[in-house]
Amino acid sequence: MIEKMLVDQRSAGDSKTQAESFSIEELSALYSRKELSPVDQVTRFFERISQLNVQLNAYLTVTREQAISAARSSEHRFGRGAGRGPLDGVPIAIKDNIWTQGVRTTAGSKFLADFIPQTDARVVERLRRAGAIILGKTNLHEFAYGVTSENPHYGAVRNPWDTSRIAGGSSGGSAVAVAAGLCAAALGTDTGGSVRIPSALCGVVGLKPTFGRVSCCGTVPLAPSFDHVGPIARTVGDVALLLGVMAGRDAADAATLAQPRLRSFGNIRELSSRLRLRFTKRHPLRLGWPREYFFDRVANGVRRSIEAAARSFEEIGAIVEEVSLPHAFDGDEPSTTMALAEATHVHRAAGWFPQHEADYGEDVRTRLKMGDEICAAAYLAAVEVRKRVRADFETVLEKVDAIIAPTVPITAPRLGEAKIEIGGAEETVRSALIRLNRPGNFTGLPAISIPCGWTRGGLPIGLQLLGRAWQEERLLGIARLFEEAHPQLRRRPKL
Amino acid sequence: MIEKMLVDQRSAGDSKTQAESFSIEELSALYSRKELSPVDQVTRFFERISQLNVQLNAYLTVTREQAISAARSSEHRFGRGAGRGPLDGVPIAIKDNIWTQGVRTTAGSKFLADFIPQTDARVVERLRRAGAIILGKTNLHEFAYGVTSENPHYGAVRNPWDTSRIAGGSSGGSAVAVAAGLCAAALGTDTGGSVRIPSALCGVVGLKPTFGRVSCCGTVPLAPSFDHVGPIARTVGDVALLLGVMAGRDAADAATLAQPRLRSFGNIRELSSRLRLRFTKRHPLRLGWPREYFFDRVANGVRRSIEAAARSFEEIGAIVEEVSLPHAFDGDEPSTTMALAEATHVHRAAGWFPQHEADYGEDVRTRLKMGDEICAAAYLAAVEVRKRVRADFETVLEKVDAIIAPTVPITAPRLGEAKIEIGGAEETVRSALIRLNRPGNFTGLPAISIPCGWTRGGLPIGLQLLGRAWQEERLLGIARLFEEAHPQLRRRPKL
Repeated sequence: MIEKMLVDQRSAGDSKTQAESFSIEELSALYSRKELSPVDQVTRFFERISQLNVQLNAYLTVTREQAISAARSSEHRFGRGAGRGPLDGVPIAIKDNIWTQGVRTTAGSKFLADFIPQTDARVVERLRRAGAIILGKTNLHEFAYGVTSENPHYGAVRNPWDTSRIAGGSSGGSAVAVAAGLCAAALGTDTGGSVRIPSALCGVVGLKPTFGRVSCCGTVPLAPSFDHVGPIARTVGDVALLLGVMAGRDAADAATLAQPRLRSFGNIRELSSRLRLRFTKRHPLRLGWPREYFFDRVANGVRRSIEAAARSFEEIGAIVEEVSLPHAFDGDEPSTTMALAEATHVHRAAGWFPQHEADYGEDVRTRLKMGDEICAAAYLAAVEVRKRVRADFETVLEKVDAIIAPTVPITAPRLGEAKIEIGGAEETVRSALIRLNRPGNFTGLPAISIPCGWTRGGLPIGLQLLGRAWQEERLLGIARLFEEAHPQLRRRPKL
Repeated sequence: MIEKMLVDQRSAGDSKTQAESFSIEELSALYSRKELSPVDQVTRFFERISQLNVQLNAYLTVTREQAISAARSSEHRFGRGAGRGPLDGVPIAIKDNIWTQGVRTTAGSKFLADFIPQTDARVVERLRRAGAIILGKTNLHEFAYGVTSENPHYGAVRNPWDTSRIAGGSSGGSAVAVAAGLCAAALGTDTGGSVRIPSALCGVVGLKPTFGRVSCCGTVPLAPSFDHVGPIARTVGDVALLLGVMAGRDAADAATLAQPRLRSFGNIRELSSRLRLRFTKRHPLRLGWPREYFFDRVANGVRRSIEAAARSFEEIGAIVEEVSLPHAFDGDEPSTTMALAEATHVHRAAGWFPQHEADYGEDVRTRLKMGDEICAAAYLAAVEVRKRVRADFETVLEKVDAIIAPTVPITAPRLGEAKIEIGGAEETVRSALIRLNRPGNFTGLPAISIPCGWTRGGLPIGLQLLGRAWQEERLLGIARLFEEAHPQLRRRPKL
């Protein structure tokens, strides 16, 4: 019965969807019709985790008993009638820098290996209230302070498309858990691309919402004015459903108080009709192509894939026009300055640095020391550059509905690789992976990464769309247009 | 005719009010009845400036021709019927760090001696539109970065109550111009008490509004997250009238955008009834007495005067209760850290420092260098302390209508004095004058200084009232209650 539905639904796909690869939308429909049991689905994920986690190192902690018990409650609700909504019974993985009550939250750190929070982070609270089932905590770059997820204390997360390659980070474990069918969806955090980078390198969908859309309360901070919590899932619709549950004002996170409400996210039918944008010849979809900034130093394969995506948008009636962001390059150094200073401040204020200096991985320790060197006047100067860069993006986004760009200029590097060559020029892996993502964090504008192609070698390529502040709905709608035009891009790795 | 009205009105006072000491409310009534001419009044002030400015050094620049011409227009309006409102024809002095179109604005700096702005600051624009007449620009501590107004380039401002003493600062020239009858009212700026300190030391009324109430656009910044523009005048009612004109949203100063509107400021009759607060036995006026923080290291004479003010509030039905601000002391160092860093950032960003290093006075140069030493992590830690300190004040201000405190713990020190003794302990003049004012800037809460007594030696003492954010109306009402109970406190120095 399950198999039949999926064949009907996904006949255009190049890989048969199996139960572990159901989208939330699919799961929810099956649960409602009692064609699938939340307990069975949760059990299936734990079996796969047992098989595959040794190799992928995506989970640091699994919470099997709690999850099975929560799945039973969910099953009971469906048995009596209906679930609590589209997340009821949906198995979710949580990045290990997001607090979970009674479950250790290491943040990928050695000296927090035994830290057990007394409360859930606000997003976890919201997910649980919506009936989601937490499967466990995912591996990450130490303190989310890096983009490879090569964790010196817990081991590297491995890319399911080629386990000799990195998953990207810092939310590497979350993206891998989604890509490899070890959960239905996952939470990540994104301070300089940490949701989008691993989503791109692992071939899944990741959203960094508008700054202040989702409460960071109970999330281990990295650089508070850049920090976001965001969902990672298999489809744009799933990301939208998760965002609907995660978003909302929270007195404990002042940045969230300014947000306008998201409309009718959480109801699948309404959501689908909302995300299905209607563009006409008189009011066509307009996409901005920021050549100078986002297409500088991009690997040829990636560039071609984004160009193909732009053409495919044109085929469905969009206008793609070149746009200019004259101050974007000005933001590169100031955004680093601010993030470094804020991270060091956080670690000092928490009493971690320099007290545990010896217990940090070398890369994180080095950056914490760099943050110490930044003077307040440079920080304050950077704050002003931020305003100019944001104004640039906002000016462009008055004319276009979204900006189209690569998420990262390369495909997944090999484990241990520190430098990479793009078009004959050498660059650090860190810089290459961050530089097209940081503008979203510097400006606070929402940005999504969706799969837009695979290299011949079988590595995924991510398309980034940046949208207007607080208009996640429109951004997701545009992403969904692309996704619907390319059902074959929902792939899963052979494992 | 004029004399008669004043004798009637002010018979309780201990000094006969002369034309140069009219309040704005009085001036406006006389103009409307054509019993006084704006041209005559402006001319009178210029005569007094000619006589007294040599001694007091309150004005750096006078704009006689423009002012006479503006006074003629005003007179013409009154001649045809009515003026534009309570500020029409009112002669105002502007602190010289506030831009005036076509009139040099030195900020008290040597290297800006010939700087002529192309536009008015937003507050000046608003005053002119209300018919106010600008008499000239007042002397100040260099760049408003100090509290004595001993300007190394333009000479020290002198206290009209004892010209061997400082006027306080940084808005020293503005406070002296008001106190000595060289204008009807004046504008100052307040980053660490710069409106309130000279108001207290010169025996006039000065208001630091809520942060973001008055646009700082066109005002030379000192430490932007502490900077306020505020009015200095002879009476609480005058300060309220000025605030009504000065306040308002301004897209060029983002901090102003959050403000709720001030109600019916600008109409004298409505304003008076608003400021005349009605308290009952069931809902009495409640004042907080923050002994630990605001009465630590206060000279005996000042303390007794504030105690007498509290008793006099009790006599008119108020309840004065001791309140606790447990984190107030925690703010002293962080507020200095932030202000130093922001000032250095401003001077660097403007291209002034270190380019003009040799042209700064020694004290300002030293502090600019100190600002260079502050690391970003310390700045960010201070930002968090600010939240805690503000929460303390807000908690207290939920229970009481205002906090009662000295404006400064001493009376005006002698010119050149760097240190002072309070209760046997030595303290720098700078620290003594700032420390009870900085909390208002650190928290952004509104604070007013009003005269509450004179020492036997004839030096004024200032009472400070701190109120709730955006509730200047209530704060001014409370100050007006005190003022009405003590008409003898409106004094003018013998010059």
